[in-house]
Amino acid sequence: MNHKPYILITNDDGIAAPGIHALIMALKDDYDIAVVAPDSERSAVGHAITLSDPIRVTDFDKNGLWQGYAVSGMPADCVKIAVGALLERRPDVVFSGINLGSNTGINVIYSGTVSAATEARMLGIRSVAVSLATYTDPNFTVAAQFARRLAPLVLEQGLPDRTLLNINVPNVEQSQIRGVRITRQGMANFAEEFDKRIDPRRRVYYWMDGKKQELNAGNDVDDEAVKNNYISITPVRYDLTNYEARDHLEHWLKGLNING
Amino acid sequence: MNHKPYILITNDDGIAAPGIHALIMALKDDYDIAVVAPDSERSAVGHAITLSDPIRVTDFDKNGLWQGYAVSGMPADCVKIAVGALLERRPDVVFSGINLGSNTGINVIYSGTVSAATEARMLGIRSVAVSLATYTDPNFTVAAQFARRLAPLVLEQGLPDRTLLNINVPNVEQSQIRGVRITRQGMANFAEEFDKRIDPRRRVYYWMDGKKQELNAGNDVDDEAVKNNYISITPVRYDLTNYEARDHLEHWLKGLNING
Repeated sequence: MNHKPYILITNDDGIAAPGIHALIMALKDDYDIAVVAPDSERSAVGHAITLSDPIRVTDFDKNGLWQGYAVSGMPADCVKIAVGALLERRPDVVFSGINLGSNTGINVIYSGTVSAATEARMLGIRSVAVSLATYTDPNFTVAAQFARRLAPLVLEQGLPDRTLLNINVPNVEQSQIRGVRITRQGMANFAEEFDKRIDPRRRVYYWMDGKKQELNAGNDVDDEAVKNNYISITPVRYDLTNYEARDHLEHWLKGLNING
Repeated sequence: MNHKPYILITNDDGIAAPGIHALIMALKDDYDIAVVAPDSERSAVGHAITLSDPIRVTDFDKNGLWQGYAVSGMPADCVKIAVGALLERRPDVVFSGINLGSNTGINVIYSGTVSAATEARMLGIRSVAVSLATYTDPNFTVAAQFARRLAPLVLEQGLPDRTLLNINVPNVEQSQIRGVRITRQGMANFAEEFDKRIDPRRRVYYWMDGKKQELNAGNDVDDEAVKNNYISITPVRYDLTNYEARDHLEHWLKGLNING
């Protein structure tokens, strides 16, 4: 029996979010798809996993258009439980998204969307995170169609070892897209602000808020490429070792007498 | 007025955990210290941050030995709110730990202990994560004393750019420590298992469990160094870009007609 390639789709905005629906609709005719996503929004969860609580899985039906599993865990849990317990065969590719809001720069570290793709790659499955760079008036069409065009490339050519693709798409019409750029993760910091308040029971609490500091970088930086209407593709690795720093540290360590 | 160097101490096991107490006791005589840590355990939270909920801060007193702030957020939140709102001056170094349980290999990605140190480094502050490689019968003495000996080195020599130190200490006596190794993050995967159960209301739920797959690596790998009674120091970076993969992807991208 000839299967179509099998694509697992997940996200961090929750299974009912419009972004995952757009992604599914773009992929479901050409591929066998499985949808396993959080039962509600799990944004800025980083690479959290659920160890102390049971994980619940319920069937989800999107008005007869597609079916999936809603999971009470984190995006990374969704990939783990899909591959480890729910799916009958191993997916060929995992797509995570389409996230409402960019996952560029420092945000990549906090991103549940990227963490789901990272989890897949750690399990040896090729993976792609897709985000749309807006919080208002999203039009997912360009991002969804880009995912559809990218999927055969990922399937046929594979991806570099231990590396996933983090894709950010500007929220504009297809005609305004200037092209695609292979980028690096931007390093602009957040300027955080804490709004200190007193609750009705006179206890202190804070709201955290922050603005990404603007920096003028080139189109080889994810943020900047998207701002200039390029689709940004950053190769992301999950080996966090700074290999270049090891020699420096070997030298540095001589200041410590523990080996002597 | 001559200040001592200022060290912020945090963790992910919670402010009442014995590991942070051991670290504080080892550092508090030589340095000005501030303690800002989660009000309860926040393990395997990855680099989560709290955006949708208010963050509460309460005073904490450890039997008159030291004082700190207990925070209702994640480890990364603790560093953000400490630097952004609670502390009167900027810390010179952040120590995160001592974690009960190693943070080696793939675990580095899930680690709240490492995420707090990552957050500090992103804010431009030198940082060190310290973990003890056991879940049972912990003896924090060796790890705490190692942190005390490391602190002046970090203060005087600094750390490589955008890089923090992830330290794992074997749970043995000082006399059994064979030395210190500069290591890389191990890449052994987890073999996950999902235990499927039915609750009293006949609903399905799962417990996630997993064992790290053993691999025979050298002492330049974090897991293996610790297993062989070396203290492991891995330089960890938060720029996730796979720079080497970019050329490959540029070539790869020619399969896509979007630029043409």
